Amino acid sequence: MEVTKTLARFLVNSRYEHLPQDVRHEAARALLNWMGCAIGSTHHETVSCALAAIKPFAGPAQATLLGRRERLDILHAALLNGISSHVLDYDDTHARAVHVSSPVYPALLAYCEWRGLSGRDLIHAFALGVETECRIGLSVFPDHYNAGWHITGTAGVFGAAAASGKLLNLNDQQMTWALGIAATQASGLREMFGSMCKSLHPGGAAQKGLQAALLASKNFTSSDRGIEAPAGFGHVLSTKFDPSVITDGLGERYELPLNMYKPFACGLWMHATIDGCIHMKRVHDLKPADIAKVDIRVGPMALELTGKPKPTTGLEGKFSLYHAAAASFIHGAGGEAQFADEVVRDPELVALRSKVVTHSDTTIGKFQSDITVTLTNGKSLHHKVEHALGTLERPMSDADLEEKFRGLVESVLGAKQAGDVIAKCWAVETLADAGELARVATPTG
Amino acid sequence: MEVTKTLARFLVNSRYEHLPQDVRHEAARALLNWMGCAIGSTHHETVSCALAAIKPFAGPAQATLLGRRERLDILHAALLNGISSHVLDYDDTHARAVHVSSPVYPALLAYCEWRGLSGRDLIHAFALGVETECRIGLSVFPDHYNAGWHITGTAGVFGAAAASGKLLNLNDQQMTWALGIAATQASGLREMFGSMCKSLHPGGAAQKGLQAALLASKNFTSSDRGIEAPAGFGHVLSTKFDPSVITDGLGERYELPLNMYKPFACGLWMHATIDGCIHMKRVHDLKPADIAKVDIRVGPMALELTGKPKPTTGLEGKFSLYHAAAASFIHGAGGEAQFADEVVRDPELVALRSKVVTHSDTTIGKFQSDITVTLTNGKSLHHKVEHALGTLERPMSDADLEEKFRGLVESVLGAKQAGDVIAKCWAVETLADAGELARVATPTG
Repeated sequence: MEVTKTLARFLVNSRYEHLPQDVRHEAARALLNWMGCAIGSTHHETVSCALAAIKPFAGPAQATLLGRRERLDILHAALLNGISSHVLDYDDTHARAVHVSSPVYPALLAYCEWRGLSGRDLIHAFALGVETECRIGLSVFPDHYNAGWHITGTAGVFGAAAASGKLLNLNDQQMTWALGIAATQASGLREMFGSMCKSLHPGGAAQKGLQAALLASKNFTSSDRGIEAPAGFGHVLSTKFDPSVITDGLGERYELPLNMYKPFACGLWMHATIDGCIHMKRVHDLKPADIAKVDIRVGPMALELTGKPKPTTGLEGKFSLYHAAAASFIHGAGGEAQFADEVVRDPELVALRSKVVTHSDTTIGKFQSDITVTLTNGKSLHHKVEHALGTLERPMSDADLEEKFRGLVESVLGAKQAGDVIAKCWAVETLADAGELARVATPTG
Repeated sequence: MEVTKTLARFLVNSRYEHLPQDVRHEAARALLNWMGCAIGSTHHETVSCALAAIKPFAGPAQATLLGRRERLDILHAALLNGISSHVLDYDDTHARAVHVSSPVYPALLAYCEWRGLSGRDLIHAFALGVETECRIGLSVFPDHYNAGWHITGTAGVFGAAAASGKLLNLNDQQMTWALGIAATQASGLREMFGSMCKSLHPGGAAQKGLQAALLASKNFTSSDRGIEAPAGFGHVLSTKFDPSVITDGLGERYELPLNMYKPFACGLWMHATIDGCIHMKRVHDLKPADIAKVDIRVGPMALELTGKPKPTTGLEGKFSLYHAAAASFIHGAGGEAQFADEVVRDPELVALRSKVVTHSDTTIGKFQSDITVTLTNGKSLHHKVEHALGTLERPMSDADLEEKFRGLVESVLGAKQAGDVIAKCWAVETLADAGELARVATPTG
């Protein structure tokens, strides 16, 4: 069965007009969310370290580092924007495991900016990149992930190669080679979680995927069976590999509408709790002084992963239901600001989190939380979150995404320019030159 | 057990004076052989394709593309010189599986040239890079290779990172990170054998290893246990992993003296036969007209891999004992020239190869061949090669390496300049600026 060639043929033959409307709108939503993450993290230490290391070797100023004045060659711009996309772990996630945008959009926007390609080209290539990385990732999931691979790196490089190859107008043979060149560079270990290298995975995937397409465009050859051969990606990097997941129904259904966005700047396990606490604060106009005790029931895994009772840093706060609940009641939010070191150490929050009691409950799902607040006046309030905000059952609205974007970007670009980027993202399909997106994300003045 | 940290500490504490004399001399021999391969292939289609794809994005002219006038930033110079090193499959091989020089020297020479570091710095870092890649490769060999990984890519990136990190004077923590950044980028599939991607493996390893060291030098963090952790390199990329192979006897013994050089431009399975036929031609002054029949006995695997009776291209000729024997008797050589398309199709060679008969013999080893020539005058001659030239038991002499170098390089640089490069290689430990090696390998006039 010809898996790599079949996928390549689909990618080459796809036309913008083939994309359903919901796929195109989801691409615009993903664009807004991705740009927010990348711009919002552009001054993060991880990005600054990488830029300091790379800058003396960068090529011509072809593409923008989002949110900065620096411009780099497109390969290094893809790397750096890929790193910033993921550094807060706030980027989007396909319903089953791959962070879809951070390996793909950085490669595409850099190339579009350099060549002056249109917003439609960008959206079309992105949808194909997502289709490619999700299908390849799912063909080896979960065994591949369980073995220790960070699937956003290993599958992401295929997404970046396929999407870039579409922009480069590769033919069938060249697209097959691009996928093969991606296959032989697929990498990324879960051991790196907690270090800067985690963000290097989508960044490296973006850079290597774009490079794979560029090499293939000059007829740099690879195997025609890079994905499915016995010594190819599927069998070498996984004990279970189902090639039909890659080829079945290509073009008939798309993975992009299964994309999810994070409303809160932490792991998904705490989202339902944050969502529920914010809801109760708003509905009942709760003040910290009103609260005597908070009982939170979550699933056993959520408690295992986020059960840290006394966090001392922002990073530790991201693994503490106690902190997350207290911050939600006091700030009414769960953004990056609520996980700053000083917020985690704020005496008012510390006092409130000591009133939080957690309970492990096997009947509560991953995206659920059951919250009971006992008030100082003796009454009690109850709220059960069946589907946390950001799940497929309760997706973030376009307005929610705008609010998240502003929270990330206004401190970098100011409110006016943040609004300009939002407008360009919603209008992406009308842009004659998608490079406008990058230019409007450059600090002025 | 702290594997990554222990290795990092050894690398950081190593001093040039610690290296035994045989290791230093072997580093010079490897340098000469590597430069010959890289310069000799510099106009190969694989290199030209990659250069065409990469050039628009390259940075400042910091380092030389060996054998060409082009200069690139050090990361891309490492990539391109890494590709050219391996494209003829004529580069060196550790006694157990890793091509040692092609992932390491390209990174080092580029960095030395840029920073004006000494020949001693170059040799020292190279020896440490080889030690690193061989030990890590051997810790997972042969399961890792048998699973489908091209170990020159996957282990090579560690060699390039360690060696580059030494030049960059990384401290213990930074060197640990550099090895971790290498671990999470280790890649290369055996499925790519036969395509241009095979050479991308050492080239990519050189580039990514150098980049890993540069990132670590700016305190870009990774796991401290990138090699040995459950989700680290050893366990994720192999079903068998023995960390003691990495740490036992570090600094007490070195892997570099186990390096082997190929006298002939084809797979090792044909070397004993070529060696023996050249020997018989010389000793008995044989002419094609003297030969009625050639009986060659080799092991079953040699015949399976190189038993192509009627090759039609140079590449097919590399898998034909029939062609190799005929070329050896007529040309008295087994270099790249003997595997040109026109040589494989030369009627005189085609006539002689039709007189070759092969026999599978389980008593004949991989590096052995048993040859009987029946002369047209009715007499017969016999010669058994117990150890082919280039094996550890019968290494190529320094003079053999010079002859191989001239065969590869004179057509690119001319005889005079080829001699200059040879002289610089032997004098490497006296060079105040190792960049001289690169400059003398640039075509003049």
